[in-house]
Amino acid sequence: MVDTNRDLYPSRTLHRVPMFDRLDPVVHGGAGDGPLDREQLHRYERDGFLFLPSFFGADAVEHFRGELQRLMSNPALGMEDGVITEPGSQEIRSVFAVHKRSRVFNHLCRHPFLLTAARQILGSDVYVHQSRINYKPGFEGKGFNWHSDFETWHTEDGMPYMRAVSCSIILTPNTEFNGPLMLIPGSHRHFVPCVGETPEDNYRTSLQKQDTGVPDRETLTKLVRQAGGIQAPKGEPGSVLFFDCNVLHGSNANMSPVPRSNVFFVYNSVANAPRRPYGASKPRPSFLSERSDVRPLAEAGTSEDR
Amino acid sequence: MVDTNRDLYPSRTLHRVPMFDRLDPVVHGGAGDGPLDREQLHRYERDGFLFLPSFFGADAVEHFRGELQRLMSNPALGMEDGVITEPGSQEIRSVFAVHKRSRVFNHLCRHPFLLTAARQILGSDVYVHQSRINYKPGFEGKGFNWHSDFETWHTEDGMPYMRAVSCSIILTPNTEFNGPLMLIPGSHRHFVPCVGETPEDNYRTSLQKQDTGVPDRETLTKLVRQAGGIQAPKGEPGSVLFFDCNVLHGSNANMSPVPRSNVFFVYNSVANAPRRPYGASKPRPSFLSERSDVRPLAEAGTSEDR
Repeated sequence: MVDTNRDLYPSRTLHRVPMFDRLDPVVHGGAGDGPLDREQLHRYERDGFLFLPSFFGADAVEHFRGELQRLMSNPALGMEDGVITEPGSQEIRSVFAVHKRSRVFNHLCRHPFLLTAARQILGSDVYVHQSRINYKPGFEGKGFNWHSDFETWHTEDGMPYMRAVSCSIILTPNTEFNGPLMLIPGSHRHFVPCVGETPEDNYRTSLQKQDTGVPDRETLTKLVRQAGGIQAPKGEPGSVLFFDCNVLHGSNANMSPVPRSNVFFVYNSVANAPRRPYGASKPRPSFLSERSDVRPLAEAGTSEDR
Repeated sequence: MVDTNRDLYPSRTLHRVPMFDRLDPVVHGGAGDGPLDREQLHRYERDGFLFLPSFFGADAVEHFRGELQRLMSNPALGMEDGVITEPGSQEIRSVFAVHKRSRVFNHLCRHPFLLTAARQILGSDVYVHQSRINYKPGFEGKGFNWHSDFETWHTEDGMPYMRAVSCSIILTPNTEFNGPLMLIPGSHRHFVPCVGETPEDNYRTSLQKQDTGVPDRETLTKLVRQAGGIQAPKGEPGSVLFFDCNVLHGSNANMSPVPRSNVFFVYNSVANAPRRPYGASKPRPSFLSERSDVRPLAEAGTSEDR
């Protein structure tokens, strides 16, 4: 990594530009540097994600769900920034910055295992670049187009390198019917520049329905074929999914009565703090992209969380 | 069945009316009356559908797919009635009346097994009430809300009784990623009146996105719980799905590069021909609801189709 502000991953181009190889490592640490073993690190490096079924037990999940309910039932929600409703509805889709709003989720993002695994993958101290809870209500939660988070974080937030990992803690069963996260294994090893200029204040609509920063279908087809198919990790509440900032993912609508809820933290390397956006006139709000407090996160004091 | 024009299944009501038990039998024939055995008939009666994996072989599937391509690539398509495009796009979603447009599909709807199985289920001679090919393109095919076909056929087409069976012949793999048909097992034993008046010429938009004739979520939730979950039969091209006219079904968007294509015939009992619509000012066009030619369908002469 060369420390200039050169745009290593240009996107939102006028014309289609072919995908190219990722310039950054996927895994920075080794098996001795944290809780993930050699095989888990290998899978993460190869696929761009690592699924840990039923990592948290029922009591912990109950605790987190209670906190999610508490946050969502705050009558002031929906009137402030950082709360996103379903397209064409008042139903709450996401609440951002939950590690700042909630003691429980602040504690959770500093959970010793989650935090040290993130450090191990990124090979450095980390901070929370973004956090949120997603509540994908039964029969209501809409899907999300295929995208790379990094493509947005780089273009709209000025994140220079691919050195961030997302961690999703699943709070309801993930089934083929409630719109689970779908990933294209191996897609994180390529950067797919997307066509189209970023609209002003794009995040106001893109968090409901993403139209900009969507890869072209030909490239998607190639990557799915190369991967041997799409994958959708499914499992019980309490399962944990780590996924690379650049792996292509999307989701379908929730056709079932069961919500698809999760808590979501983005750990970013302290060496990868946002600069000026590479493809937008101004950075997005801090609830989407932390830029002021990028100090190393410290582990929660106790180990009772798990 | 009493032969009056009394509306046995009122729907599109002003206020919500609770679901009630189906008044018609599900299976009319016995195990000796056709090719389906006792166990298959039992499953159809219990679940409202019967899936026959890989019924047609690769050669037959190739033949049908070639014919689908031929019909879809007709440049005149899209300009005539009976051709439905994706919402917000010119991509073709469905072509109707394929048993009239195509010798191959006319032959297929009279396939000895399919036809005699339909007769066995309905306990009478049958005719084709509706036929179509669905081409759910990769990354493009949108989903479809939960609905009962009978609710529409009764309200908008005047089909008096629940005595019709749909037969879907799958021409591409059905996976969890390309928007397979989802069904609520057992839901066919209840009629769910839907709230809301039928708009004039409703079919012009309802075939792209159904907003009228959609059951309420509370009832859907109850039926899914009662069923022990949603089911989505998945399998190889050539698989056949028979499903009852009143079973609740829907589908999600196609998130994969692989289209989800099928041929679809609705067999209706000759004793169940449409009357005046029960909840619309005029019947829908004949490509959606055959009313002029309800003569018994005769088996195709040869047995080479399979």
